[in-house]
Amino acid sequence: MTDIWLETLITNTPQQGFELAITLSRRGVKYTQPDAETLKALRPEYANSADGLTAASQVIATNFQTVAAANNYWWKSQFCVL
Amino acid sequence: MTDIWLETLITNTPQQGFELAITLSRRGVKYTQPDAETLKALRPEYANSADGLTAASQVIATNFQTVAAANNYWWKSQFCVL
Amino acid sequence: MTDIWLETLITNTPQQGFELAITLSRRGVKYTQPDAETLKALRPEYANSADGLTAASQVIATNFQTVAAANNYWWKSQFCVL
Amino acid sequence: MTDIWLETLITNTPQQGFELAITLSRRGVKYTQPDAETLKALRPEYANSADGLTAASQVIATNFQTVAAANNYWWKSQFCVL
Amino acid sequence: MTDIWLETLITNTPQQGFELAITLSRRGVKYTQPDAETLKALRPEYANSADGLTAASQVIATNFQTVAAANNYWWKSQFCVL
Amino acid sequence: MTDIWLETLITNTPQQGFELAITLSRRGVKYTQPDAETLKALRPEYANSADGLTAASQVIATNFQTVAAANNYWWKSQFCVL
Repeated sequence: MTDIWLETLITNTPQQGFELAITLSRRGVKYTQPDAETLKALRPEYANSADGLTAASQVIATNFQTVAAANNYWWKSQFCVL
Repeated sequence: MTDIWLETLITNTPQQGFELAITLSRRGVKYTQPDAETLKALRPEYANSADGLTAASQVIATNFQTVAAANNYWWKSQFCVL
Repeated sequence: MTDIWLETLITNTPQQGFELAITLSRRGVKYTQPDAETLKALRPEYANSADGLTAASQVIATNFQTVAAANNYWWKSQFCVL
Repeated sequence: MTDIWLETLITNTPQQGFELAITLSRRGVKYTQPDAETLKALRPEYANSADGLTAASQVIATNFQTVAAANNYWWKSQFCVL
Repeated sequence: MTDIWLETLITNTPQQGFELAITLSRRGVKYTQPDAETLKALRPEYANSADGLTAASQVIATNFQTVAAANNYWWKSQFCVL
Repeated sequence: MTDIWLETLITNTPQQGFELAITLSRRGVKYTQPDAETLKALRPEYANSADGLTAASQVIATNFQTVAAANNYWWKSQFCVL
């Protein structure tokens, strides 16, 4: 992709980090199927399926692990204090 | 989402951390399918399915990894003790 | 849940840690479907299914990662020795 | 379970660690379905299924992450060298 | 494979890291099924399936964890700052 | 297994590490189903299935996390520089 959509993994709050994890999860789908019309057509297939929603939440959880680690879990003292 | 639902990953006890992991797992679903009626209708589909429940427990386990690390596993001395 | 079922992630031995991982996995299911009768009825569905058992073992493996890290893998010297 | 089957996560070699990961994966199944006859009957269901074997390998990979970390990846100097 | 396709896990930006994670995910497929014609024929099977796309995004998320850690999450000071 | 197939997790390059991750993934299958003929017969079942290939790539990604960590992500200075 030629557009810039991910400049940093750092966010101000855990919630923004969770929302970034959602962005990463959607981008993983979009890189695999770039056609917006196809994606739109597939939406009901998973958004109305319990299994599909759980699988989506699993991807988000995996990406949130990365984002949370990147932000050192939003501890006040940013890095390991020695 | 405009409401604030995740201000910190820190909890007092491991059990509260596990319950936060459940919240994260449900939010992952809710961001993907925000319609409360649809979610309610889908509930029997996974809550009465062994596979659906195992998959839900997998998402919770993944989020609990994040929450547990964020809390340094609730060790008494909170951060890197040297 | 109002009962206290998880006071610490620390266990004396790796085997007790593995058994705690099983408890966490079952709790993940129980929070999602709290009705004991429904859970009992679903038991044959996964306990007699190869796929269901493998999926259960996957959840346990994920939770065991958390418990093992929390116990610093039961190394004799508990924390990073400097 | 009352028998002692996991006294340590430490192994001499990476291969023994991989084999321990297999033991952990099988124990995850056995705790969920303790009946040996049922397990034996289910064996063809996954051992002759490509999906079943890949899922089994996924559980092993997850447990191997734990065992490998516990052994500090079998580096010569065992723990944090500074 | 005899061609060199992975010389380093280091990238300049998180987005390049995400794209490297996609490369790793595709290579995982290609090592398992090296025949380009077969892969091309299978493409509609997952690129037009909600479940297939979510599963692809899950693989990417897993590989992105590795790439992000390898880049120390693109923190300005590259390695352990004390 | 009595043969020695895994003496170290250390590789010279990331690509060799990725290929080791593939070896680990295949060994996970082979320990579960040691019969070479059965494995050969199952090959078309996953190598010609989009879902099967994605699942294989997921196992490889998980094992690559382990191998990459074991090699400290192939950083020039092998260990945390203080």
